Amino acid sequence: MTETGQHGAGTLGPAGASKGRGAIGRQRDERPEAADGHEAEALLARARTAVDPVLRSALGTLPGPMRRVALHHFGWAHADGTPATGGSGKAIRPALVLASAAALGGPKAREEAVRAAAAVELIHNFTLLHDDVMDRDTTRRHRPTAWTVFGDADAILAGDALQALALRLLAEDAHPAAPAAAARLADCVVELCAGQHADTAMERCRPGEVGLDETLAMAEAKTGALLGCACAIGALYAGAGRTDVTALDAFGREAGLAFQLIDDVIGIWGDPHRTGKPARADLAARKKSLPVVAALTSGTPAAAELAALYEAPGGQGDLEHIARTVERAGGRDWAQDQAADRMARAMQELARAVPDPEAAGGLLALAEFVTRRST
Amino acid sequence: MTETGQHGAGTLGPAGASKGRGAIGRQRDERPEAADGHEAEALLARARTAVDPVLRSALGTLPGPMRRVALHHFGWAHADGTPATGGSGKAIRPALVLASAAALGGPKAREEAVRAAAAVELIHNFTLLHDDVMDRDTTRRHRPTAWTVFGDADAILAGDALQALALRLLAEDAHPAAPAAAARLADCVVELCAGQHADTAMERCRPGEVGLDETLAMAEAKTGALLGCACAIGALYAGAGRTDVTALDAFGREAGLAFQLIDDVIGIWGDPHRTGKPARADLAARKKSLPVVAALTSGTPAAAELAALYEAPGGQGDLEHIARTVERAGGRDWAQDQAADRMARAMQELARAVPDPEAAGGLLALAEFVTRRST
Repeated sequence: MTETGQHGAGTLGPAGASKGRGAIGRQRDERPEAADGHEAEALLARARTAVDPVLRSALGTLPGPMRRVALHHFGWAHADGTPATGGSGKAIRPALVLASAAALGGPKAREEAVRAAAAVELIHNFTLLHDDVMDRDTTRRHRPTAWTVFGDADAILAGDALQALALRLLAEDAHPAAPAAAARLADCVVELCAGQHADTAMERCRPGEVGLDETLAMAEAKTGALLGCACAIGALYAGAGRTDVTALDAFGREAGLAFQLIDDVIGIWGDPHRTGKPARADLAARKKSLPVVAALTSGTPAAAELAALYEAPGGQGDLEHIARTVERAGGRDWAQDQAADRMARAMQELARAVPDPEAAGGLLALAEFVTRRST
Repeated sequence: MTETGQHGAGTLGPAGASKGRGAIGRQRDERPEAADGHEAEALLARARTAVDPVLRSALGTLPGPMRRVALHHFGWAHADGTPATGGSGKAIRPALVLASAAALGGPKAREEAVRAAAAVELIHNFTLLHDDVMDRDTTRRHRPTAWTVFGDADAILAGDALQALALRLLAEDAHPAAPAAAARLADCVVELCAGQHADTAMERCRPGEVGLDETLAMAEAKTGALLGCACAIGALYAGAGRTDVTALDAFGREAGLAFQLIDDVIGIWGDPHRTGKPARADLAARKKSLPVVAALTSGTPAAAELAALYEAPGGQGDLEHIARTVERAGGRDWAQDQAADRMARAMQELARAVPDPEAAGGLLALAEFVTRRST
């Protein structure tokens, strides 16, 4: 599966170091504090600090069995219910909500958007719980997935409950933007479901049957949509008009697609010690991730070779060889060029909605952080 | 599974005819038009007419694959997407929303609550889609369940999308009661999930391990909660105060429990031509429905016999004999007495919130309809 955030931080290697920075370098030169990731890390930590109490309080309202599954999924409890520390994710989506609110509405809007940021994080985790059931993924955030510990039914029910908690947080929020945010978040859930459907349908196809455009559309629905929605919701809480909300949605979508492209690169060439998954896991599972589909549709001799390798029955095959074949067919370069291109588009949308570079700094730092992932 | 509405209309037989009417007879004498079910049927048909366009419009916004699953589940399309007619359920929950709004707020409130009524129906159908996946139920409303036609993943995703559509309908509703209704509906989803969890957990237990109180609590969470929520939401749209909202919630819960008790009786002794399921289906599946648990916990010699029959390995066993054993252990009488008792409590709550019998007539007719089911 090509789910955002599944892979931990990882190194892109030399190709990523040279290619991925082309479109981003100009901004980086102007904002050295963003380039080294410290600003993004501070924003993520601050988002986590703001949102975690709301999340813990919301999970605390769940009946026992679902609370246990949810706390385990968030990394806040072991399977037996005893407290655990850590691993509830990088808080990228809540950080985007808060940074977006701050960019257009200052500290007051940021503060008012904390519940909405928690709602977005609940939606993200609801989809992770369900996607893991459907995809039979066994590891998430370096831990066994919920369905492997509690069974399919409890993982499905916990996901259902998290969606409900998310929309309850917004329904109980007296802020004038809350209904529009709830409607937007509900729309986003439908898009996320469509993305997951496309993903599972594509995984059932033969390698030659999957197109690159549909794979990009799938990734936009599955990953870009919620990052865009997070930014749009932040803008709504800042009282922004339709144009700015739309631009920030587009910023988040494009950055999200760049994020997914890099995540897919890491899924093939990432360091397993940092991803928390076995090396070449996406290739072992024959996932039709973006670099793979780009390679398969490249029309090169290596593409035909890759298709044959992907269809060969039995065994894992030589994963190193498959990875090199994807690279020879141009899949890695394409993904990194495409990521840089998407980031450039994201920057354009951001500049449209938030022309003041100072105000835009937080969102810029977060976008660079998620597409860099080399810290 | 003991899911509400799974069984079609059925006859209760002589025991039901004599027992189930005790507590209700007084009201019936005063309101002959309610007693014969015509008023309820008219209310259900009217609710269906009001809510269906909203439901169809909401489903129409879904992306293709999920729309196909949802339309099939509602009985509005065949598996291949061609239009079909019928079988989208009895519309009991939307009818309760509208009747509750009308009882406390008149025709204007009724009209304003149509979107909320559709939202409640979407939530009901989301839970049915997911419950069928978890319970591996293969038939619903006389048709194959969604997961048997489209696979687990698509059934889960369609359910997820229906929950989102429900809460979007309320988020986009400008009525002042909409946020409170959304919060209440989200809370109800959590309770429904807890009920389904309890149900699946109990089905895994040995017959001797399940208590009657916990089975009643499960049925209240799984079935009573949404009927109560439907009534409460109607009251909210009528501008009712907290006391009346609470009383109507309790009315719906008690009527819902009576409904479930009767549904469980039908699941054992109902006419398969009317239920759309094989005869004695709940016994064949060894479901721990309310009459069965009452029988198992009765302390009678027949209880021990029933426990042995339920635990006997292999085969379906003699289902007629099991049904007679449940009856000999008092399970059928208990369920029908309990249903009458719950209906009496429902009537008390209704009289508290809506003292005028004329205004309460619709809700009374609906409650009698769902617990009578002999038409």
